[in-house]
Amino acid sequence: MLGAMQDWELRVSLLADHAAREYGSREIVTRWADGSETRTDWAGIRRDALKMVQALRRLGIEKGDRVATLGMNHSPHLVTWYGATGAGSILHTINPRLFDDQLDYIANHAEDRVLIYDASFQPIIDRMKPRWKTIEHYICFDSGEHATPFDEWIGAEDGDADWTEGDERDPCMLCYTSGTTGNPKGVLFEHRSNMLHTYAAIMPQCLDLDARSVVLPVVPMFHANNWGFPWAAAAVGAKLVYCANNDPANLCDLIGKEGVNYLAGVPTVWLSLCQHVDEKGEDLPPITHALTGGSAMPRAMVERLMKAGIRVAQAWGMTETSPISTIAYESSDWEDLDLDAKVSLKAKQGKALFGVELRTVDLDDPSKVLPRDGKSSGALQVRGLWVIRRYFKAEEDAADEDQWFDTGDVATIHPDGTLQLTDRTKDVIKSGGEWISSVELENAAIAHPAVAEAAAIGIAHPKWDERPILVVVRKPGMHVTGEELRGLLADKVAKWWLPDAVEFVDEIPHTGTGKISKKDLREQFADYRLAE
Amino acid sequence: MLGAMQDWELRVSLLADHAAREYGSREIVTRWADGSETRTDWAGIRRDALKMVQALRRLGIEKGDRVATLGMNHSPHLVTWYGATGAGSILHTINPRLFDDQLDYIANHAEDRVLIYDASFQPIIDRMKPRWKTIEHYICFDSGEHATPFDEWIGAEDGDADWTEGDERDPCMLCYTSGTTGNPKGVLFEHRSNMLHTYAAIMPQCLDLDARSVVLPVVPMFHANNWGFPWAAAAVGAKLVYCANNDPANLCDLIGKEGVNYLAGVPTVWLSLCQHVDEKGEDLPPITHALTGGSAMPRAMVERLMKAGIRVAQAWGMTETSPISTIAYESSDWEDLDLDAKVSLKAKQGKALFGVELRTVDLDDPSKVLPRDGKSSGALQVRGLWVIRRYFKAEEDAADEDQWFDTGDVATIHPDGTLQLTDRTKDVIKSGGEWISSVELENAAIAHPAVAEAAAIGIAHPKWDERPILVVVRKPGMHVTGEELRGLLADKVAKWWLPDAVEFVDEIPHTGTGKISKKDLREQFADYRLAE
Repeated sequence: MLGAMQDWELRVSLLADHAAREYGSREIVTRWADGSETRTDWAGIRRDALKMVQALRRLGIEKGDRVATLGMNHSPHLVTWYGATGAGSILHTINPRLFDDQLDYIANHAEDRVLIYDASFQPIIDRMKPRWKTIEHYICFDSGEHATPFDEWIGAEDGDADWTEGDERDPCMLCYTSGTTGNPKGVLFEHRSNMLHTYAAIMPQCLDLDARSVVLPVVPMFHANNWGFPWAAAAVGAKLVYCANNDPANLCDLIGKEGVNYLAGVPTVWLSLCQHVDEKGEDLPPITHALTGGSAMPRAMVERLMKAGIRVAQAWGMTETSPISTIAYESSDWEDLDLDAKVSLKAKQGKALFGVELRTVDLDDPSKVLPRDGKSSGALQVRGLWVIRRYFKAEEDAADEDQWFDTGDVATIHPDGTLQLTDRTKDVIKSGGEWISSVELENAAIAHPAVAEAAAIGIAHPKWDERPILVVVRKPGMHVTGEELRGLLADKVAKWWLPDAVEFVDEIPHTGTGKISKKDLREQFADYRLAE
Repeated sequence: MLGAMQDWELRVSLLADHAAREYGSREIVTRWADGSETRTDWAGIRRDALKMVQALRRLGIEKGDRVATLGMNHSPHLVTWYGATGAGSILHTINPRLFDDQLDYIANHAEDRVLIYDASFQPIIDRMKPRWKTIEHYICFDSGEHATPFDEWIGAEDGDADWTEGDERDPCMLCYTSGTTGNPKGVLFEHRSNMLHTYAAIMPQCLDLDARSVVLPVVPMFHANNWGFPWAAAAVGAKLVYCANNDPANLCDLIGKEGVNYLAGVPTVWLSLCQHVDEKGEDLPPITHALTGGSAMPRAMVERLMKAGIRVAQAWGMTETSPISTIAYESSDWEDLDLDAKVSLKAKQGKALFGVELRTVDLDDPSKVLPRDGKSSGALQVRGLWVIRRYFKAEEDAADEDQWFDTGDVATIHPDGTLQLTDRTKDVIKSGGEWISSVELENAAIAHPAVAEAAAIGIAHPKWDERPILVVVRKPGMHVTGEELRGLLADKVAKWWLPDAVEFVDEIPHTGTGKISKKDLREQFADYRLAE
């Protein structure tokens, strides 16, 4: 070597050290389901995490062992993020909304040795305990009725310990995707991938976080790395406000009392918040930053938030991408755009963050890379510094030899690099050799005031291979006919896209994470026959 | 392995790829010394850099070889940043303001094989050529009179090439510190350290750069990694505006014409800009971001810029820290502060960026770490992800076994982590077992309207070990006595800090980078005797 710079492993424990040292008294607030509040700070989070490191060692937990949580958003949950990873073990955040068979599968597949859970999930524990073969220790975040209470468990330690050292490419977190087909698949985040994602996510053209940020992440901590907030907030000294009850009245009260200026949640969170203030005749709470993701935020909602002076940022990503891949941010000509153009920009999925690369390939021939012309629609692939290579315990890589990972989304990329999602690969309908977007049909149908929910699926057709049908749930007490809906759609999509039939049902099946389950819907309509 | 995320080497070439792909048409503008302008864009920079990669390979330049530049700020210079590093060679940015002996030393020490230079530096080339033993190829950025012109050199290639691959810990840049003692020392930046510094620097609480930024870096490209702008601008798609002539009238004109909203330069740049607009009776140009560093920006200047609605950010760092270590940014209680408090915050050196750690140790006993109490003053040490480990070709590490690097600065760290520099280690004056800050004496003296420049040095004293004297240059036609200055200082510093004598001189010696040379001044006053 000729000389050079210092060697440091990019371990997430550096974040806890930095936050405790530079922003030790910056608060972390939790409002629990019963309305009570607890307060700690970054110094407290680090101290408790080090106590947890000692407590895990005392249980014999070793490097690489899995430590699971089944909890909502609160500060002890944040402690486990730094405690489990700081002990060299792997934090496995379990989604309590999964079905029992999935809960069974993932805890056994992960070989979790410890489970730390909210008392409110005691029924799940009672039900699943006989099926979970590897969990040796149960600890309860907020009660000691059926298990060791978390406070008592870590309270037996003095916190005078060091983080477990190791390579930056060591895994530190495990998060399963719910998966609409087959078993859930585990994404194993590394210390390094989390650290690089953290740096990138803080950027002004991504989360735009700084020491003034007071963040209320409504997105659950068990979901997709919690969009990175537990790490990014530590890097910049942001205050975190957690809430167990996401009722809009409760959120508005908490926002006001704790000075929250940054709210992050899926579009339905924003929808219920808007409905609430409308009913009360109130203004939107005085937040400055709205982050959304998970599904597309309706244009009207983007416009409303922007008119209230809120900086709206819509991100796209998935658990497999840590999760942020793209975000819609202010373009170089932003100041020259009118409101309408600004809303249009923010209503798309945005551009790739530095560290991530996108492309689309032909749905029939994946070796054919499509142009970024804003027209060609194809399978979206992604690669980069915090993108998955291989699922947990998988035999083969999930990415190809050039590291391209197929997202399962269908998308168009515009000439300026802006991503526009059009469908899921497995949901597009192939008719006469051409592709029909199920999402575009659904979006058009949902605009009708009487439609509560709509799903388009392909039905086998002897001549056209597949033809779309639209399955619709009407709003209570409202009426609409299939012909009316086809008439509405005729104005919005190509004529050959029009569904051959509209079927009204009482209910559409959903997955464990609340998405429409097209798989179940297709099974339900397996014997459906279209007139030729 | 259990599975995990993708492996990518953090190479700076990823920045050129990203900028060209996502912001290909974002402009890079250069106004040359003769007033002419040239325009390219990020796609053009990448294309030309790949041509340069081919041209270097054709010259037989191999991985790790040094490619030097001797140039001001312009787009071909930016091309060499990505071209030299993209070819796997090491870009050595030479400071043309160095003395001949230093220029001799560093080019030979670096073993530069290629030198690309501005035609305006032809006299340096003519003078130094016989002394530079290793340089095989001379290429001129902007003329073909005495060497191959750069355009012609890369113009012979087609750009159809790939970046040289390698490890992220490969060195990519070499930058010598001018050094007030001994020979200049080379800092060897790595691809990885530059990439991590880039991510960190973009943060809202650091450079606060995004796609809307139009940056005019007045700081020279040969100085301290150009504060990171050539890399950070590529990551976010910022427009770069370069200027060969930093005359304030020229800067103001360029700012207006190119829509510059971000200006970065040492305090004297801001001083001359303010003087210019005052003389013309104009407002400050409509920039939104002012970045400064190199030396402390006077409080009055901070206040003036802030009142003009400009976001002022004062950074501290050094070549050895890539360079940004700390920056003064908006605190969590920013909105509650009055202007005076805001100015005070921004007039300090700020807090450590995530990735860097600071501490102070006792000047007499470096094993004693000092508290962060805002009072204790000691030797400032730094360590972190983009901090030097070992100088180029050095036999020993510059950092200790815990990676602490002694900055040579004397500082106080406040309880909130804010850094306040008080002196250089070798310039503090030891009197009666206690330390006197030469910088504080100088800052107090410079406040007098008749003082053009002031330097405090220690003079040997039989009883007190050392006593300070103040060396002063008066402004033309102005008058002030030593007693008047001592009277002014008596209000600002402890009585025992007051200089024993004030000496008026016509000129104070400076280093090659324009700083006061205390070393030369001490030599000049070596035989000076104080009354006992």
